[in-house]
Amino acid sequence: MNMSTRIRRRHFLVGAGGTAVLGASGASVAILPAIAQDAQGGSLPSYADWKNPEAMVIHTELTLETVRDAIGTSVVTSNDVFFIRNNLNPPSEEVVQDRDAWEVSFEGVANPRTMTLGELKTLGLETVATIIQCSGNGRGLFDHDASGAPWRTGAAGCAVWSGVPVRAVAEELGGSVDGARFMTSTGGEELPEEVNRDEIVVERSVPLEAMENAILAFEMNGAPVPIAHGGPLRMIVPGYYGINNVKYVRTVAFTEEESTADIQVSGYRVRPVGESGAPDQPSMWDMKVKSWVIHPLMETTSGRVLIYGVAFGGTNPVERVEVSTDGGETWEDAEFTGPDLGRFAWRVFVLPAELEPGDYTVTSRATDSQGNVQEQTTEPNHRAYDYAGWDRLAVGVTVV
Amino acid sequence: MNMSTRIRRRHFLVGAGGTAVLGASGASVAILPAIAQDAQGGSLPSYADWKNPEAMVIHTELTLETVRDAIGTSVVTSNDVFFIRNNLNPPSEEVVQDRDAWEVSFEGVANPRTMTLGELKTLGLETVATIIQCSGNGRGLFDHDASGAPWRTGAAGCAVWSGVPVRAVAEELGGSVDGARFMTSTGGEELPEEVNRDEIVVERSVPLEAMENAILAFEMNGAPVPIAHGGPLRMIVPGYYGINNVKYVRTVAFTEEESTADIQVSGYRVRPVGESGAPDQPSMWDMKVKSWVIHPLMETTSGRVLIYGVAFGGTNPVERVEVSTDGGETWEDAEFTGPDLGRFAWRVFVLPAELEPGDYTVTSRATDSQGNVQEQTTEPNHRAYDYAGWDRLAVGVTVV
Repeated sequence: MNMSTRIRRRHFLVGAGGTAVLGASGASVAILPAIAQDAQGGSLPSYADWKNPEAMVIHTELTLETVRDAIGTSVVTSNDVFFIRNNLNPPSEEVVQDRDAWEVSFEGVANPRTMTLGELKTLGLETVATIIQCSGNGRGLFDHDASGAPWRTGAAGCAVWSGVPVRAVAEELGGSVDGARFMTSTGGEELPEEVNRDEIVVERSVPLEAMENAILAFEMNGAPVPIAHGGPLRMIVPGYYGINNVKYVRTVAFTEEESTADIQVSGYRVRPVGESGAPDQPSMWDMKVKSWVIHPLMETTSGRVLIYGVAFGGTNPVERVEVSTDGGETWEDAEFTGPDLGRFAWRVFVLPAELEPGDYTVTSRATDSQGNVQEQTTEPNHRAYDYAGWDRLAVGVTVV
Repeated sequence: MNMSTRIRRRHFLVGAGGTAVLGASGASVAILPAIAQDAQGGSLPSYADWKNPEAMVIHTELTLETVRDAIGTSVVTSNDVFFIRNNLNPPSEEVVQDRDAWEVSFEGVANPRTMTLGELKTLGLETVATIIQCSGNGRGLFDHDASGAPWRTGAAGCAVWSGVPVRAVAEELGGSVDGARFMTSTGGEELPEEVNRDEIVVERSVPLEAMENAILAFEMNGAPVPIAHGGPLRMIVPGYYGINNVKYVRTVAFTEEESTADIQVSGYRVRPVGESGAPDQPSMWDMKVKSWVIHPLMETTSGRVLIYGVAFGGTNPVERVEVSTDGGETWEDAEFTGPDLGRFAWRVFVLPAELEPGDYTVTSRATDSQGNVQEQTTEPNHRAYDYAGWDRLAVGVTVV
């Protein structure tokens, strides 16, 4: 396939692996390798065979990435292009035959008990738009090798979720026990008996205060949550990395200590390359400020060009986005467009530009309401979590 | 099929056709017939075979209704349950092979010309959440016979649309001509040659001021607009009845007079039963204030019940929703939940209630920002447009 064929097809450009040069400002920017990654149709796993194959990069059966510009410009990411990252095989279709019969146990409350989704639905209704982003989103932009899918930008999406506020459930059950510092959620995947539970279970603890915004979600973008995305019931912790948004949630416990599961104790811990994971390292909880351009990619026509992309601040609203077409030497403020779906959602930013023929390095830099500015580069970390540097999130654009 | 089977299946209750009684307040309310309308799976037309068959009532190949409670609680209505009402057969799949090549002619501007969608996309980007509602939504709630699908509540949905602001296009082309009073959009369906164009063409004029909010939409809920919903390009006139949101838009003209097409001159005109349509009658332009309950329907368990539904004010924001469980004798204020997607979107309202066993008549009454209150009943009109009365939008609920 030659380059012009590629350009006509859906593609995205990765900003990694290029030669680093010094811009006039002294900034180290990635020069853009002409690496386009086309979606690979035809091998969607059966539990996700309803996805749009043209929009998905299939890394493995359990890791499907969204093509960079397939998230669209409408704030909400359509279910059929939403990325998937499952730690374990999803449960069978049986779990959604009678969604309201799904049972969840609540522990660490004054009156612990098991409730069905049908019962839970009488306790409250809340809708929140939030980004779900895999901790490893951007892994493919680091230089070092790290296990896990080499995501670029596409392990993130923004959806509108509806469900039952966790705080309403806690209140119904008499409140969380004294001393509780964490909310610990356990997934309902079937575990092989021969393996130690802690080695494999999807169980994550988040600080108790995250409960205030958390919902037990039964709807995703207006549809019953698909199994591929954690249906019938998913714990949604707005503004937190994907792993904390436990799918097929079976147990919610308010605990004094964090879970003893491996993915809590040593997994999802940020540490220098080569170090083992340990509880004293930062956990992948709330997300950091980040943005990236989704248009134009690769090539465009000279004249007026709308440069646009998405930006978010994790648990803080994003307040400002600057755009550079020269790899970070100069910046111009972009404007937000579209409805503001709240602080956990991303916003679409737009900058109209007049571009002469030539080569451009286009990138964006977001600032959140607390003054946190998107970093220029992301320090290597052992598991290559969340590359958020504007240098390698840049795209190379040839204007003809 | 017995009643208990019905209750376990997806269904909705129609509020029409029941015996009218006088409530204590003297209000005439519809008593709720035990008529459940199940979705009829299996016969989705090919252009819409990706819809969820369980969520659709298939009136005809071109009229598919959303089951009352399948719109969900997340503000956005998922594409796969969104209703369809097409006046003509949709064009073939070819029109979406190269979406950016789709051409639109602009007339009634200083510099009229044809532009491709690719060109249009350089002019601006705007996202708007709006309800699309068929003029005939609620037709099945009137007593009199009228041609058209007997929709109940399900010819309405709320989606997030992205596209090019029409005002930016007009500006690019030198502005609309002096004296222009209407924006007239023409659909791109293929017309049979033997029929007079005006008799069949989908062409609608709206007051010029509607241009301010109108967009040429290429995305619906984050996905390229499906053919079934007017893709590759649909005129979206936020807050206006569905017919004005012309699909497959091929021509946009700024005109002194309204279109001479039948659907403008005599169609979509509100007039007494038995009268012919004429230009001096009100046209189905901006929508009126309306709301309806989507939960509970039919039967529910005693104790705490969340009563919820949707409410909107057309081009005005909806400000208040009251809920009655006794057919309009007494009312209680509900609260809105979920993000506010702007004045053209609907809002989800919720009222927690404690219900003893018995029979209830549950309905809602919305008020918009201009003080317009949802009507109690809708006067019969020839084509049975937009039944918005809270009397027959009521649902009968048996609490056990």
